Amino acid sequence: MPGNSFGRVFIITTYGESHGTAVGVIVDGAPPGLFLSEKDIQQELDRRRPGQSTVTTPRSESDRVEILSGVFEGKTTGTPISLFIRNENADSSAYEPYRQLFRPGHADFTYQKKYGRRDWRGSGRASGRETAARVAAGAVAKKALSELGIRICGYALEIAGIRAETIDLDAIEKNIVRSPDSSTAGLMIQKIEEARNNGDSVGGVVELLVKGCPPGLGDPVFDRLDAVLAHAIMSIAAVKSFEVGTGIHVSRMKGSEYNDPFIIQDRRVRTETNNAGGILGGISTGEDILLRAAVRPTASISKVQKTVSVDGKPATIQVSGRHDPCIVPRIIPVAEAMVAVTIMDCLLVQGMYRSYSQGQEKSEKI
Amino acid sequence: MPGNSFGRVFIITTYGESHGTAVGVIVDGAPPGLFLSEKDIQQELDRRRPGQSTVTTPRSESDRVEILSGVFEGKTTGTPISLFIRNENADSSAYEPYRQLFRPGHADFTYQKKYGRRDWRGSGRASGRETAARVAAGAVAKKALSELGIRICGYALEIAGIRAETIDLDAIEKNIVRSPDSSTAGLMIQKIEEARNNGDSVGGVVELLVKGCPPGLGDPVFDRLDAVLAHAIMSIAAVKSFEVGTGIHVSRMKGSEYNDPFIIQDRRVRTETNNAGGILGGISTGEDILLRAAVRPTASISKVQKTVSVDGKPATIQVSGRHDPCIVPRIIPVAEAMVAVTIMDCLLVQGMYRSYSQGQEKSEKI
Amino acid sequence: MPGNSFGRVFIITTYGESHGTAVGVIVDGAPPGLFLSEKDIQQELDRRRPGQSTVTTPRSESDRVEILSGVFEGKTTGTPISLFIRNENADSSAYEPYRQLFRPGHADFTYQKKYGRRDWRGSGRASGRETAARVAAGAVAKKALSELGIRICGYALEIAGIRAETIDLDAIEKNIVRSPDSSTAGLMIQKIEEARNNGDSVGGVVELLVKGCPPGLGDPVFDRLDAVLAHAIMSIAAVKSFEVGTGIHVSRMKGSEYNDPFIIQDRRVRTETNNAGGILGGISTGEDILLRAAVRPTASISKVQKTVSVDGKPATIQVSGRHDPCIVPRIIPVAEAMVAVTIMDCLLVQGMYRSYSQGQEKSEKI
Amino acid sequence: MPGNSFGRVFIITTYGESHGTAVGVIVDGAPPGLFLSEKDIQQELDRRRPGQSTVTTPRSESDRVEILSGVFEGKTTGTPISLFIRNENADSSAYEPYRQLFRPGHADFTYQKKYGRRDWRGSGRASGRETAARVAAGAVAKKALSELGIRICGYALEIAGIRAETIDLDAIEKNIVRSPDSSTAGLMIQKIEEARNNGDSVGGVVELLVKGCPPGLGDPVFDRLDAVLAHAIMSIAAVKSFEVGTGIHVSRMKGSEYNDPFIIQDRRVRTETNNAGGILGGISTGEDILLRAAVRPTASISKVQKTVSVDGKPATIQVSGRHDPCIVPRIIPVAEAMVAVTIMDCLLVQGMYRSYSQGQEKSEKI
Repeated sequence: MPGNSFGRVFIITTYGESHGTAVGVIVDGAPPGLFLSEKDIQQELDRRRPGQSTVTTPRSESDRVEILSGVFEGKTTGTPISLFIRNENADSSAYEPYRQLFRPGHADFTYQKKYGRRDWRGSGRASGRETAARVAAGAVAKKALSELGIRICGYALEIAGIRAETIDLDAIEKNIVRSPDSSTAGLMIQKIEEARNNGDSVGGVVELLVKGCPPGLGDPVFDRLDAVLAHAIMSIAAVKSFEVGTGIHVSRMKGSEYNDPFIIQDRRVRTETNNAGGILGGISTGEDILLRAAVRPTASISKVQKTVSVDGKPATIQVSGRHDPCIVPRIIPVAEAMVAVTIMDCLLVQGMYRSYSQGQEKSEKI
Repeated sequence: MPGNSFGRVFIITTYGESHGTAVGVIVDGAPPGLFLSEKDIQQELDRRRPGQSTVTTPRSESDRVEILSGVFEGKTTGTPISLFIRNENADSSAYEPYRQLFRPGHADFTYQKKYGRRDWRGSGRASGRETAARVAAGAVAKKALSELGIRICGYALEIAGIRAETIDLDAIEKNIVRSPDSSTAGLMIQKIEEARNNGDSVGGVVELLVKGCPPGLGDPVFDRLDAVLAHAIMSIAAVKSFEVGTGIHVSRMKGSEYNDPFIIQDRRVRTETNNAGGILGGISTGEDILLRAAVRPTASISKVQKTVSVDGKPATIQVSGRHDPCIVPRIIPVAEAMVAVTIMDCLLVQGMYRSYSQGQEKSEKI
Repeated sequence: MPGNSFGRVFIITTYGESHGTAVGVIVDGAPPGLFLSEKDIQQELDRRRPGQSTVTTPRSESDRVEILSGVFEGKTTGTPISLFIRNENADSSAYEPYRQLFRPGHADFTYQKKYGRRDWRGSGRASGRETAARVAAGAVAKKALSELGIRICGYALEIAGIRAETIDLDAIEKNIVRSPDSSTAGLMIQKIEEARNNGDSVGGVVELLVKGCPPGLGDPVFDRLDAVLAHAIMSIAAVKSFEVGTGIHVSRMKGSEYNDPFIIQDRRVRTETNNAGGILGGISTGEDILLRAAVRPTASISKVQKTVSVDGKPATIQVSGRHDPCIVPRIIPVAEAMVAVTIMDCLLVQGMYRSYSQGQEKSEKI
Repeated sequence: MPGNSFGRVFIITTYGESHGTAVGVIVDGAPPGLFLSEKDIQQELDRRRPGQSTVTTPRSESDRVEILSGVFEGKTTGTPISLFIRNENADSSAYEPYRQLFRPGHADFTYQKKYGRRDWRGSGRASGRETAARVAAGAVAKKALSELGIRICGYALEIAGIRAETIDLDAIEKNIVRSPDSSTAGLMIQKIEEARNNGDSVGGVVELLVKGCPPGLGDPVFDRLDAVLAHAIMSIAAVKSFEVGTGIHVSRMKGSEYNDPFIIQDRRVRTETNNAGGILGGISTGEDILLRAAVRPTASISKVQKTVSVDGKPATIQVSGRHDPCIVPRIIPVAEAMVAVTIMDCLLVQGMYRSYSQGQEKSEKI
């Protein structure tokens, strides 16, 4: 309720500040009997890790995850899975200059207003570092979903105005910006480097695809699948818009253009087009679920900006330091994690994933 | 959890099918001692009511609300407020032709998949009629918020590609499309009428403004104010995108353009611009909160469409009947209601509205 | 959250004051495809109805239930079931004398403290009348559970110190105090009548049995089956203690006496005794679940009592009127309802009741 | 929802198995600005620690707590507080003999049924060790409550049939069984030692007192203060009954004996007696809240017991090892912790603790 948990039956609860001892997450509600190792989680964390390429922050954190509970003899037990990541490369002194200043575009001012105080070291709880815990939790969800043949796939549809022209899922992890169009990746990288050289930052658009989701998922009327996915995706700090299917463009379409005709294909009900993005009336159709999120340019820039001090005096600020000039490539695994957690939760809420109690039946025979 | 409730401490739970006996809502958590009458609620319902103008469905429902509980001697008691609206003008026979057919763009197919059966009369639970209950609940939230000087205001920013060029809040309720720019209202109306005459429908964009929201509202990390507002707005069936502040356009901005500089004004910390839409790090800044939602063209159109029958045979369909050729004007009070409920809930969760237990202090003196 | 809802996936939300327009409940999360009629609900309401026998209040309410939503063609649809009971025999003038006085044993004082005001007519929301809504909701749960062979059975184990000596489930509904021992029923009735004649009231003990509950139900560590059942039962106003299995007597037993030995019977793991009351480590064993609750004597008595007025002056009070001299017989269906709702919710949370989405599979074959 | 969290706005989530890497808890919703150190938490943990006296298990764990997040410069920040306790003295080999056997009175069988597998080392998640995390969380709640003058106090009312005759709160921590009557402590100790020498175990009764709770706390109708306290206390594995005030004895009282007369004292409304245990209609009266819980004799005993093996064969078992012959003394801090968390949560839900957002006002003056 104070906002650090997400989910209803598959529940993740994160903790940790950027420069505190650790960040971590408790994953509650994972089904028992699932094979799960630190390696499963580490490979997702490595996709979010700082310092992974020339377009991310050079700050280096190994982000080693440790499973503290919930796994026994290599498999989940149905009890809470506690995932722990010790903070390493925290240099709080670099934040000293901003201790008394509200950085524009950051949560310094609003945290101060809400809580009356704040941990100013490395943005504290408002830091993007918190998303490492989400990625770790998402890895558990992804593992469970993969057993049902459900796959979540995110990519940089657009960076700094450069848009991917083709969507090749195999291309994504082969370039450092995670573009699904290898021919545009180079230009995206160039735009990011230009921004960095100017002490500035750029934004972009992340697109997300859920493949293999069964029809019938989602709870009208308030917990429609698209509504809970919107909640999940908009909970990522840098995201400023959310779209499903055709998204914002529906506003200029006619009903006759937008409605997806139903057809029969391979003895299943399908839609001929997928303007709805795989969701009708808040419930999945069985088609690919298609989502998009606009990502703001990184708030930390070294250009001079106007601001005020904590004690209410006008000031200027230059946020130097090791920041990502574009957060899009590193936000992709975070967005995937949030989608994975949401889908997993919806399946469990509806009893469509034979629940964290699935062991029930197996042991019935004694 | 099955999705018919919204909120955490200020909780609304709706019920009712389009052609059932009634639709209604239980509003739980409203503060005691609030003046509340059926008239307060009726005036909001009248803004959503079918048949209110030439651009809405000619179907006529008086949508008379009755308060069944929670109000005593004209004021709330702190106990659940049950609001009841009897269904009147339901002609189920008009839906007979679609009983065996999945209407494109509708939830017929997905309800069938999820529940194994569906109330096909007037779309049943998936009908827009359910939103009458939301508007009734929203009226309670609006009343409570108005005591704190918080005002929620929605309008048609765009219809069928025609965009308001100025935002005049006083103009909104003076034209039947709820355009904030009286000079564009006529063109919007014309576009809607054209669509209707062609047996088609059009969409648009709703913009929402929250004025007077105190700074410090919202719960990082998962229940950021923008995330819960996204959940609220995307839970309206026809909405296909959600934006906060500059929204989708952030993807093509530089950090130096997007960051809102802090300034001191009237001895308060303000931002010079408001690209962030009044929310930083998921917490309100005290500036106007600015949201946008793209609304799809109405699914029910009388043009011939391709579809399949419940038993899996290809078919064609023409959805005749009394439908809105554009749902934007009637969705505005619904969207306002969802925002009002969300803001009210956030205030209560944080103890910033002196809670549904506020009577506590007043009676302390006996 | 403000306390008028119960359950996590099978959620009931009640509303209504004793002398308001109506009391009612929304039952959310009931599985689709369940046969459900007003008669199913009415028969449970009739067991709780005032005026049903010579030992209950002579006040007469027909308590007619109306299903407002969620049922179509005689079967549930998976959408919220709204159950409505209009208040009839409300004579508020009878409460005028107590408007300015806090009745001892009643919630008048605490409601005033909490909310700063209260609906004083017939105890308002604090009235036992609210439990009619619970019984209605419980009837839905019971109907669903009966399809799984789960049966909930309550009875008066003790009234005014007279204890049933045998437990014959078939005897219960054949005497007006719901004693499982027809030989003690007469004495119980006599004790109640004595109390009434003296302007006093008596209490007793309700025992509850759940038969047919599958093993493996319940969520350690905080939502153990016994903990959520305790929550459910203790939420009934007149209940002042809760016990599972041997209950309070465990405090004087030795481990070697208390532990239930495991045995194999009919190829199933059973326990030889059932001191644990069917629950081990918060999870059901498959044995009968056995619960007990002590019920206080009715608060409304016509003997002279000492009290204070709303404006803080000493006073005396005599609560005349049509009150139950013993609430035990009428609390039994309420307690059963709470147990039924809890068990149903636990089954759904764990995905052990193939969920409100069970229709899913049935329609898969199109 | 899967049961490892408790609370609505002040939420604790525990993790960890007896012989895993660690046990821990995330405390979410604690108000910012609260002084909090590891020492505050350690002193409560030391009261629960094994090996603290001759009547507890000789197993020795230092139970050192580490604060991983949520505290900055000695004060809480309003963000989640992660408390971490590394497991030390775990000897899993001692549990090898029971790997294939269901220990009577333990959760081995039911975990196997529910999850299909279990961590058999030291009872895994079902171990009493999980309560260390609760005590740590409770220490945070206690610290916050102490600032409001609310104090929670538990003691051994009865052990093995020996009942305290006087209640002297100052006596409690001066004897190893935590008896409030120093004259009975010796006899209680003697009974425990006798049981241990016989390879057996004994139970008892814990009584809990909340002093200083303001009137008006609690949420009718389902989340009555006594109902949520029952949930909290019954969630402790060894507890088999819950009582409020006069408790189980109300069943044999008359209304005229049970009702607490209202009086005016020191210009406040008080009750002359406190049979209700400080709660009327589910809402606190301002009198002391009085609760009682019966504690079962420890399940692990070295006497020979009848049982079955995991593969369904009859067997005998002797649970040797370092177990508490009576768990009452060590359960007291656990029960206090659960009460503290519950009271704290209720205050926050109602906005009566100026919320985790209390900083709001303090910082208003910039």
